[in-house]
Amino acid sequence: MSEPSFTSSASEPARLAGIDWGTSNRRAYLMGADGQCLAAHADDQGVMAARPHFARSLDGLLTRLGVADGVPVVASGMIGSQQGWREAPYLGLDIPLEALPDHLAVVDDPAVARRCFIVPGYAQRGGEAGVDVMRGEETQLLGAVALGRRDGWIVLPGTHSKWVLLRDGVILRFATFMTGELYALLGSHGTLAPLMVAAAADDDEAFAAGVAEARRRTPLSHALFGVRARVVAGAMPAAWARGFLSGLLIGTEYVAAFDLLGEPAHAVAAVGSAALCARHARAAAAFGIDLAPIDPDRAYCAALARLQRGVTR
Amino acid sequence: MSEPSFTSSASEPARLAGIDWGTSNRRAYLMGADGQCLAAHADDQGVMAARPHFARSLDGLLTRLGVADGVPVVASGMIGSQQGWREAPYLGLDIPLEALPDHLAVVDDPAVARRCFIVPGYAQRGGEAGVDVMRGEETQLLGAVALGRRDGWIVLPGTHSKWVLLRDGVILRFATFMTGELYALLGSHGTLAPLMVAAAADDDEAFAAGVAEARRRTPLSHALFGVRARVVAGAMPAAWARGFLSGLLIGTEYVAAFDLLGEPAHAVAAVGSAALCARHARAAAAFGIDLAPIDPDRAYCAALARLQRGVTR
Repeated sequence: MSEPSFTSSASEPARLAGIDWGTSNRRAYLMGADGQCLAAHADDQGVMAARPHFARSLDGLLTRLGVADGVPVVASGMIGSQQGWREAPYLGLDIPLEALPDHLAVVDDPAVARRCFIVPGYAQRGGEAGVDVMRGEETQLLGAVALGRRDGWIVLPGTHSKWVLLRDGVILRFATFMTGELYALLGSHGTLAPLMVAAAADDDEAFAAGVAEARRRTPLSHALFGVRARVVAGAMPAAWARGFLSGLLIGTEYVAAFDLLGEPAHAVAAVGSAALCARHARAAAAFGIDLAPIDPDRAYCAALARLQRGVTR
Repeated sequence: MSEPSFTSSASEPARLAGIDWGTSNRRAYLMGADGQCLAAHADDQGVMAARPHFARSLDGLLTRLGVADGVPVVASGMIGSQQGWREAPYLGLDIPLEALPDHLAVVDDPAVARRCFIVPGYAQRGGEAGVDVMRGEETQLLGAVALGRRDGWIVLPGTHSKWVLLRDGVILRFATFMTGELYALLGSHGTLAPLMVAAAADDDEAFAAGVAEARRRTPLSHALFGVRARVVAGAMPAAWARGFLSGLLIGTEYVAAFDLLGEPAHAVAAVGSAALCARHARAAAAFGIDLAPIDPDRAYCAALARLQRGVTR
């Protein structure tokens, strides 16, 4: 997630506001009459901070952004979970991404004076990749489809990285990996954390060594201890620990995603921050894969233009 | 680890004190003239709490236990690490466990008035299971060997579970899994932690489901997210989360240990607390394996009787 900041400001009146409203952060987008994004704004008023006064929090945000009273809102992400504003039940994978505008959940909150909608997520109920859920990523995926990426592999790297296989705009199957969360937990608590302090910066060579360890299919809970074992046995400099861990966790996604989703990949699109996409591009290269980054703001705006149909119908 | 407590008290004078001195806890054993354990005592004065005043901390402990001035001490565990009292360099796996008495490191600290020794750990420098280290477990393993377990599989479950393959009292290879640490981290921080609150008690059925997921070889960072996905998708009760996670992590050890160490097992000995051994016995049964528990206090005392040779030589 970006640091909270205005990335641009609106010069013409907004016709629709979109909010990527996650657990810890949110990101708002204003869309003009021609379907173009006018402005974007990020802050830390995620679901945890805004709860239970979502209407008030939203009003404050839209006032700050100068959005007129009647302008409708489409929100996505954890705001549609049980802990959010209004629960939007998960869709089955048979619903195409481009049908999302027909499945928006209406927020029925007397405290809010405008029409508000929530994009539902998807649940995978079984199959090769097992039970899995997404909430928020479906909107990025709709954006990717709107930008022409209707088929093949898409990765959405992050706290819970999603690997998705699309066929003609339909999610065939997907798998989530706890990559970012494990990286954060292990970097701040437990045995590996003291090593991370010494390893301030990422290191390309260390990252590559971590990816190589993942390619050897070393079981993860053994490979994680191995970060420490290598350092104390003098087999790896402590300064490598952070980069190695990052490469190990990201590389593990590549090995496991292709196994789980049962299809080889030559090209993968990535919807994520420039920094995460750069790391992924390095991991992908080790697997002989080209990574095609898609800017997440651009994807969200493209999705918003599609979602407008569900708001105005 | 047991709660700090006296488990018994000495009636005859101790001839040797042994201390299993770990990062967070330590456990002291007093040995009599006939090689039998007279008393044991556990407290929370691990390396982190005692550092840097190890001599003073030891004096306090031995005074409380009524150990006479000239009685020597053998310590094992993280006390022999770089962060400990005196670094005892790792041995190579070619040194048999029964040769440990010949490799004790002498503590050269003017603040201590008795002879003190530290048991070195082992480092595995490569091979099928990769670089790995142990420090503290070698003493339990020596105890197991002294109790007649010279061959086959031994697991030492815990924060960093060790799987060890012995041949005639020599460690052929071993692998560490971050099982207990991941269980603790995920139970107290991050996405799964709120689910753990709802799941107060272990549940046999949930544990078995987690072991079954491990047997399906679901990649761990995907299976971990799957704990949450199953609950929010309504595919698993939230009350199962803790038991499922425990089964998943322990089951992952079984799958991975046999892969890594390259030898099938029909029987595995386990040196660990009764509670951990009970969980392992349930996991082992799912793999068609008999688990033979060895009491860790009994193993430590058996090791101490062997280590006495290195102290008196």
